[in-house]
Amino acid sequence: MVARRKLKSKWDILQQKIYIIIYGSNTFAGKLFDLALLFVILLSVFLVMLESVESYDTRHHMLLVVGEWIITVFFSMEYALRILCNRKPFKYIFSFYGIVDLISILPMYLAFFIPGSRVLSVVRALRLLRLFGILNLMPYTGQESHLKLAIKASKTKIIVFVYFVLVVSILLGALMYVVEGKESAFSSIPKSIYWCIVTLTTVGYGDIAPQTALGQVIASFIMIMGYGIIAVPTGIVTAEFSSLKRRNNNPPDFKQKRNCPSCTTIIFDQDANYCYNCGQKLDNAFYK
Amino acid sequence: MVARRKLKSKWDILQQKIYIIIYGSNTFAGKLFDLALLFVILLSVFLVMLESVESYDTRHHMLLVVGEWIITVFFSMEYALRILCNRKPFKYIFSFYGIVDLISILPMYLAFFIPGSRVLSVVRALRLLRLFGILNLMPYTGQESHLKLAIKASKTKIIVFVYFVLVVSILLGALMYVVEGKESAFSSIPKSIYWCIVTLTTVGYGDIAPQTALGQVIASFIMIMGYGIIAVPTGIVTAEFSSLKRRNNNPPDFKQKRNCPSCTTIIFDQDANYCYNCGQKLDNAFYK
Amino acid sequence: MVARRKLKSKWDILQQKIYIIIYGSNTFAGKLFDLALLFVILLSVFLVMLESVESYDTRHHMLLVVGEWIITVFFSMEYALRILCNRKPFKYIFSFYGIVDLISILPMYLAFFIPGSRVLSVVRALRLLRLFGILNLMPYTGQESHLKLAIKASKTKIIVFVYFVLVVSILLGALMYVVEGKESAFSSIPKSIYWCIVTLTTVGYGDIAPQTALGQVIASFIMIMGYGIIAVPTGIVTAEFSSLKRRNNNPPDFKQKRNCPSCTTIIFDQDANYCYNCGQKLDNAFYK
Amino acid sequence: MVARRKLKSKWDILQQKIYIIIYGSNTFAGKLFDLALLFVILLSVFLVMLESVESYDTRHHMLLVVGEWIITVFFSMEYALRILCNRKPFKYIFSFYGIVDLISILPMYLAFFIPGSRVLSVVRALRLLRLFGILNLMPYTGQESHLKLAIKASKTKIIVFVYFVLVVSILLGALMYVVEGKESAFSSIPKSIYWCIVTLTTVGYGDIAPQTALGQVIASFIMIMGYGIIAVPTGIVTAEFSSLKRRNNNPPDFKQKRNCPSCTTIIFDQDANYCYNCGQKLDNAFYK
Repeated sequence: MVARRKLKSKWDILQQKIYIIIYGSNTFAGKLFDLALLFVILLSVFLVMLESVESYDTRHHMLLVVGEWIITVFFSMEYALRILCNRKPFKYIFSFYGIVDLISILPMYLAFFIPGSRVLSVVRALRLLRLFGILNLMPYTGQESHLKLAIKASKTKIIVFVYFVLVVSILLGALMYVVEGKESAFSSIPKSIYWCIVTLTTVGYGDIAPQTALGQVIASFIMIMGYGIIAVPTGIVTAEFSSLKRRNNNPPDFKQKRNCPSCTTIIFDQDANYCYNCGQKLDNAFYK
Repeated sequence: MVARRKLKSKWDILQQKIYIIIYGSNTFAGKLFDLALLFVILLSVFLVMLESVESYDTRHHMLLVVGEWIITVFFSMEYALRILCNRKPFKYIFSFYGIVDLISILPMYLAFFIPGSRVLSVVRALRLLRLFGILNLMPYTGQESHLKLAIKASKTKIIVFVYFVLVVSILLGALMYVVEGKESAFSSIPKSIYWCIVTLTTVGYGDIAPQTALGQVIASFIMIMGYGIIAVPTGIVTAEFSSLKRRNNNPPDFKQKRNCPSCTTIIFDQDANYCYNCGQKLDNAFYK
Repeated sequence: MVARRKLKSKWDILQQKIYIIIYGSNTFAGKLFDLALLFVILLSVFLVMLESVESYDTRHHMLLVVGEWIITVFFSMEYALRILCNRKPFKYIFSFYGIVDLISILPMYLAFFIPGSRVLSVVRALRLLRLFGILNLMPYTGQESHLKLAIKASKTKIIVFVYFVLVVSILLGALMYVVEGKESAFSSIPKSIYWCIVTLTTVGYGDIAPQTALGQVIASFIMIMGYGIIAVPTGIVTAEFSSLKRRNNNPPDFKQKRNCPSCTTIIFDQDANYCYNCGQKLDNAFYK
Repeated sequence: MVARRKLKSKWDILQQKIYIIIYGSNTFAGKLFDLALLFVILLSVFLVMLESVESYDTRHHMLLVVGEWIITVFFSMEYALRILCNRKPFKYIFSFYGIVDLISILPMYLAFFIPGSRVLSVVRALRLLRLFGILNLMPYTGQESHLKLAIKASKTKIIVFVYFVLVVSILLGALMYVVEGKESAFSSIPKSIYWCIVTLTTVGYGDIAPQTALGQVIASFIMIMGYGIIAVPTGIVTAEFSSLKRRNNNPPDFKQKRNCPSCTTIIFDQDANYCYNCGQKLDNAFYK
């Protein structure tokens, strides 16, 4: 009984140690693990890419398969450790990264039963998003919250805008289908709508292009309209960014804001010597 | 006589009930009708699209025709009900949506007399604009008025801009026609103008592209100019959006606006110490 | 002697009348002349375009030639009248529009001596710029000065930017020439530079496209860079527009600004009841 | 001994004179040298370009080679002089321009040992960056610092953005590879990723374009997403520009800034009544 508790206690300590290494990034071992993981993820994505290139695949097929298996085993072990060392394993399993981690190892095992499912292992590219966590980019620079705020604030506007673009594309696509005729590259309405989106977004592949004079006039009109339309999302996002910037000049950089000691107003202006709100002299010695 | 009045009264009540279901969206039945209508509109647009795809059309021609007839009958009934239950039917008939509703059912009936006019039923895609009303997107978020204001304010600037782009396209198109020569893809001035618009808007299909050295130099110049030109509508629209945003900072975010305690004017300026409307000193303690 | 003076005096009056009709746009005759002129200019540009389309030209050659001669004679007469009725003819002759007016009639006469110079008559499209004067768009809305100010303020920045883009294009173009090799579509450095400009400006014709793996990697890098680069002119122009807008909210619309009667500060806020500078009560009766 | 010192002194004077001519741009000779150098650099870049054009090269090969050798000798002499007349030659040698100057002459000499390395002389296009120094564009207008500040401030945001675009491209590229199939133009994942970047950046060559219906639907989705994504860098850069502009409103326009009469701080805020630095009441009569 005592031995068992001791064992359990040892396991407890080990579990905590592993937890700190895998989930944390403050210790040296934790940082090393994060960097190694990032390297392996990049390598695994690279391998899946190489495998899809026929000339490489035929020459180095064995190497690529062995490489992928080594990585899959590594990922499986990591996944198992993440569950084992976590005191709330289900929270991890059903979190975004938990699901990503699972579906990035599944395809290799599935390939035994369903041939050709190996290609799905490219979803492990999603694991690259971990970099944001590993490099601590988000908490450090606060970009994510910045971006997220701007996107959140523009969400409804952008949905309305996308819906409007789709309706316009359907109408203009159908018009081009009627104008250019069934024998042209505009052989069906869905294809014409596809062309219209390609044109409005100024991508312009050129695989479908109007040949009749009237079609080219309408296309010119669509393009000039696209000019104006492309300005709308830019305008929305820029206005959000500017607004956030104004309201909140570099908020996460704590060195750059301070509170007025008298009225507690937040002061972002680095050069201010007096509170703009109450006129209180600001002590620059506290500041930087 | 009494029976008739009763009948009329019954009809009156029915008419009002139908009116509330069709035009309103506050009751459960009204919401259900709106959703069903939206679904049928989407289905009808989808059917017209499918019909234009030859491979589908040949296989399932009968099904598509029957489907379209069912939808047309449904739309016709809806149109009749909208007129019948409305006390001011002409206001509806000559409104934007009234005309759209009519022309989205006409092509099917016209097809008896004019073969091939069925394709025009794609105009019923315009009915998709009803979504804005159905989902009450506009009144809720006030996006439309926002967008409308920005567009209204930029109208003259955008007309001047489009006119300028057209004149530039004519001049540069003619220049390219002279430089590239009649034997190239630039076989006529209108075609060269079309190419110039394709290039200035950065769409770039590539169906027409300069082949001579001088032509490519001029094209490079046009593209770099297009770089600057694309900035103009973006600049106009963004400045409008920013200006609207500044004047009217995030109205739905109630934490950021307050009312003047004396005149109840909404004050968006976070830093204001006095009401800009009545001069009342503002108590910042009330604010956040 | 008296008769001569009388004659001269009569001519004087006629000259002034013609001057008012041709140069002015306040009288009914002046407006009519302006509209007629605009119509003839549009027609003349349209004729030159049609003539360049081979299928039209072969069928209606005589008609087009006669039409162009009528317009040329009309333009010549107009040019003569503009000189004759002007008291300072040389000022007109050497002005921008004077030169444009001359070179838009010259090609037709030159065609007697130099065959094929007729195509140059497309320069008369420059006369379309007169529309800005005819419609009085500029003085009314003040757009030109707005645009001109924004462009003037951004001039140096834009020159530096264009120069930078050119140097980058030369370097990357040369790199792609080395990478893709002489046998590819990148057959010479100038062509590679042309491709690089086509790519950086996101036009992307596709007549030249990288085929090697390394070339596509470099191209991807150039495109993502172009993403950032396209933001620079937009940023410059937008910042100018926003700044102008802020400083000078709709300046030509005199109904929207007023001076504080006490401190003469210009007040743009339409809703303000008190001067934001000195607290003076503003009399809204004067306003609007 | 005296003669030697005299000689040395003479050399000293000569060295200083040359230094002023080569490095300085205030004297007439210095300006002349700068202009001559700029001309030779442009000529040298032009020659390398011409040499890559086969038709020119075969006709005028001798001329081009002689021209390049003359320029290389001129550049070598300039390089030697820059080292000789500089009292701290190593500072120059290991500076950015020192390295550029060296590698722009090396390829010609290397061509004796490694054939085909002549093409590398295109790196001398980097010397064009000297123009910024020669024309003194930077110190005069302060653009560089402006641009540099904006870029510096947006750096992290842009890195996060580029990384995000790359991850999205990998995922969507792999998806398109699966959807379009190995037999289409999307023959490998790297190629699909390349296509995805071409599409997201709205370049759209059209050498690779989706053919299946599902592929075109996904492509439409990517393009509309690209619409929104292109707005992000524009928004970031514009917000930075606007912010810089606001903070530092048109510094060369001296009418719009004033100095605090007490502490001489430059005040850009037109509406300020008190100096934000020392609290001195500002006399608005001095201003405008």
